[in-house]
Amino acid sequence: MPRNGPEFFASAETGVRLSKADFDAAEAALRPALLDAQRRLRALGGGPLVVVVSGVEGAGKSEVVNRLDEWLDARGVHTAAFWGESDEERERPRHWRYWRALPPRGSIGVLFGSWYTPAIVRRAYHESSRATFDGELRDIVALERLLADDGAVLVKLWFHISRKAQRRRLERIARSHDRELTPWERRFSTHYDRFAKVSAAAIGATDTAHAPWHLIDAGDPRHREVAAARLVLAGLEAAAQPRAAPARELPPAVPPGAGTTAPRPGLSPALAAVDLSQRLGPRTYERRLADAQSRLNAAVWKAYRDGRSTVAVFEGWDAAGKGGAIRRVCASIDARLCRVVPVAAPSDEERAQHYLWRFWRHIPRAGYVTIFDRSWYGRVLVERIEGFAAPAEWQRAYEEINHFERQLAAHRILVHKFWLHVSPEEQLRRFEQRAATPHKQHKICDEDWRNRARWGEYEQALEDVFTRCATPETPWTLVAANDKRQARVQVVETLADRIEAALSG
Amino acid sequence: MPRNGPEFFASAETGVRLSKADFDAAEAALRPALLDAQRRLRALGGGPLVVVVSGVEGAGKSEVVNRLDEWLDARGVHTAAFWGESDEERERPRHWRYWRALPPRGSIGVLFGSWYTPAIVRRAYHESSRATFDGELRDIVALERLLADDGAVLVKLWFHISRKAQRRRLERIARSHDRELTPWERRFSTHYDRFAKVSAAAIGATDTAHAPWHLIDAGDPRHREVAAARLVLAGLEAAAQPRAAPARELPPAVPPGAGTTAPRPGLSPALAAVDLSQRLGPRTYERRLADAQSRLNAAVWKAYRDGRSTVAVFEGWDAAGKGGAIRRVCASIDARLCRVVPVAAPSDEERAQHYLWRFWRHIPRAGYVTIFDRSWYGRVLVERIEGFAAPAEWQRAYEEINHFERQLAAHRILVHKFWLHVSPEEQLRRFEQRAATPHKQHKICDEDWRNRARWGEYEQALEDVFTRCATPETPWTLVAANDKRQARVQVVETLADRIEAALSG
Repeated sequence: MPRNGPEFFASAETGVRLSKADFDAAEAALRPALLDAQRRLRALGGGPLVVVVSGVEGAGKSEVVNRLDEWLDARGVHTAAFWGESDEERERPRHWRYWRALPPRGSIGVLFGSWYTPAIVRRAYHESSRATFDGELRDIVALERLLADDGAVLVKLWFHISRKAQRRRLERIARSHDRELTPWERRFSTHYDRFAKVSAAAIGATDTAHAPWHLIDAGDPRHREVAAARLVLAGLEAAAQPRAAPARELPPAVPPGAGTTAPRPGLSPALAAVDLSQRLGPRTYERRLADAQSRLNAAVWKAYRDGRSTVAVFEGWDAAGKGGAIRRVCASIDARLCRVVPVAAPSDEERAQHYLWRFWRHIPRAGYVTIFDRSWYGRVLVERIEGFAAPAEWQRAYEEINHFERQLAAHRILVHKFWLHVSPEEQLRRFEQRAATPHKQHKICDEDWRNRARWGEYEQALEDVFTRCATPETPWTLVAANDKRQARVQVVETLADRIEAALSG
Repeated sequence: MPRNGPEFFASAETGVRLSKADFDAAEAALRPALLDAQRRLRALGGGPLVVVVSGVEGAGKSEVVNRLDEWLDARGVHTAAFWGESDEERERPRHWRYWRALPPRGSIGVLFGSWYTPAIVRRAYHESSRATFDGELRDIVALERLLADDGAVLVKLWFHISRKAQRRRLERIARSHDRELTPWERRFSTHYDRFAKVSAAAIGATDTAHAPWHLIDAGDPRHREVAAARLVLAGLEAAAQPRAAPARELPPAVPPGAGTTAPRPGLSPALAAVDLSQRLGPRTYERRLADAQSRLNAAVWKAYRDGRSTVAVFEGWDAAGKGGAIRRVCASIDARLCRVVPVAAPSDEERAQHYLWRFWRHIPRAGYVTIFDRSWYGRVLVERIEGFAAPAEWQRAYEEINHFERQLAAHRILVHKFWLHVSPEEQLRRFEQRAATPHKQHKICDEDWRNRARWGEYEQALEDVFTRCATPETPWTLVAANDKRQARVQVVETLADRIEAALSG
């Protein structure tokens, strides 16, 4: 595709016009078809269908959205318009506001503005470099692929009108008294060519097989609306197709009494390198913990003033002491600045979304600390091992997770991940102790024994995690947790070091 | 209770101190008891427990919250700190941010700051009148009663220290380098007496049977933390009690084939007064609809610029044409300004909250229009009639709904409610037509016939709604909907009139 602005779009200036009679005939066919496909989509819980509405100012995007609202069953349509950012949005990574607006499965999301607008506008005004712009487009491609991989169908509509038509239309709006021109209608229309050039580049770079662009000649309102509705219908039909479930590879059944079979450690070189013999005496523990907590407290206050957030992930073997370590972290931090997100079974609102959605919704505003007690790594650990995720699903999750964490890091959020490591012998000792202590019995269940029987598989999966999902900005710390005191001190000290270093850096 | 500040709190200056040994003994007893009660609370899905943490600056509130986080299982605790308002919060009614932070059943919410702080601070600085302050306290009492009625247990803690102790403590913080004083620590501490007086008034006015205050002498940190934990434990125990389910009055069963029994209209004088013979010809319809839509469009843009929101509620008999009317409203409004919230079965996140929570979450930011397709009136209509709500529940719902709508109106949101009224004969005609039209068959189901058989009960319930839940600021419009054209025009014209009047008033 040529990328030089007006020429790129010239092909969209078809001059097609629709008579009133043709429009009425098209409408009569489209409306029942849309409603029927929408009903099937809902019944199937498929998709979602994500309609991206973009294009030249004055091309009638808002009229198209209104038309779709009119023709579709409003009960299954989530329209989101992205204009002014709220401060809650501004203080989070750029894509947070889009994740927030994504429609659940079985429904349609109409994104008015969408993730394209800010990238294009900033570039057109030279507020972002070519490199930044390209990076933003790559992020968009990754987001769209991730959604498509999860079953979403993307229909991206670009409404085009010529410069002359734009001027005519905006003049008419200005005269009509129905409304004032929006600030960007006034602003963007004076730079038609520049926008055309940047838009052409954006379209070219994001026109992918899983999320293709459709250019619509918006010169004639009737043609524009029928063309858009037809593309939405095609998207609906695609989303309402039952998809072949990805082949699941069921793990070998755990034999009865498997809890007593010896777990196989030693399959992860990274874990094998952890010196589990480290121990701390009570006196050293008290002193070092108090020091580290005081440093962490001061560092978090400083980070708050600097608007830098921290996202700390806690994973570990069952009974490795995640809860105790998290409590020592929280106890160091002012309660106003810290939030713990326990990750258990997803709610049904979460289940109806991409698996990363439930984590995106908890990303902190600038200056705060969020602790995830278990996390998105469940996808490539328990879900992989128990066969809850199909091989294709967990295999692509490494890149999805990396992309997610990269976005946090790019927003200057400190991402730090802890794996609490114990030996199988120490775990067994703790299991037995729990079983013998009345008020601890609820902390031990069949699943713990099952997981233990799969120790070797977990080590293999963990090795993949440590090698594939770690960067200098999003590191893993493997915590020697055979001794609880040593583990807690290591966690609090590591976190304090990390935040201090980032603030002085 | 005396309300004159320092004397009021003098009773809390007990001088109680706890030795290290007593503290350790108390901790050893409290921690397992807290964890056990928390586990029972979760298993039962009771409560939630709402802990309000308030008091004098420098009394160590944040240390208490940290201590609770340490002693409780973090996986069931939702801590929310209310300090700076985000713009998303500022643009909604005052209580929106608290609803947003309420914990679900089975868990604990620790509200740090809570709904008391802004009322007290504004009053202490003479930024609100005595009347405004009293109104805010009444709103708080209503909120707390509504939560308590729904099963929540409220534990309200006020941490007190003397003026001298406050000065000492803040000086120590300032010297410690751990953190800077927060702006309000610096600001509020210079007006100790004024704050004491206003706080005493607030406590006196909100110390209710369903949400009592507990004054805690915070002079000694050990005593402070043990006292708080004991009160939290008592609250947990209360919340973890299985509650007697409210007596449900099951409605008489609908006899088989009830759809064919004649519905009993005429039980609602308000509905009987609607002139259902009104009709519009197609030509008049087109003209009046276009006029009204254009007026509505302009009015909504103007309201947007003025930051005034509209909440429009649509209720009506099955097949009365709600969907069609809503589409005509949406088609008039720029899609960027309008959102339709279809109200169907609640999600599990919604089910774990007070029934109004799911509506609070959709209250628009300043300047936008939100349309509820069915609404909170389900509580006093279908839930009352089908016995889903116990008599005590739906009977108190009128006041809860009025209080909710009053808060919207007080925030200058335009609240308008529509009931689309058709005769039983017209409904029957539409049911039969739907059953006979292939692409409309999904719109008719057994429930519609069931509801029809209960027509008389609905009319009685509706009459209660129209007489008990309507004010000049939150009116009902009963729409004559036997003729769809007349209904649509009436709806769009009414809404346009309402918004125009509000903007010029």
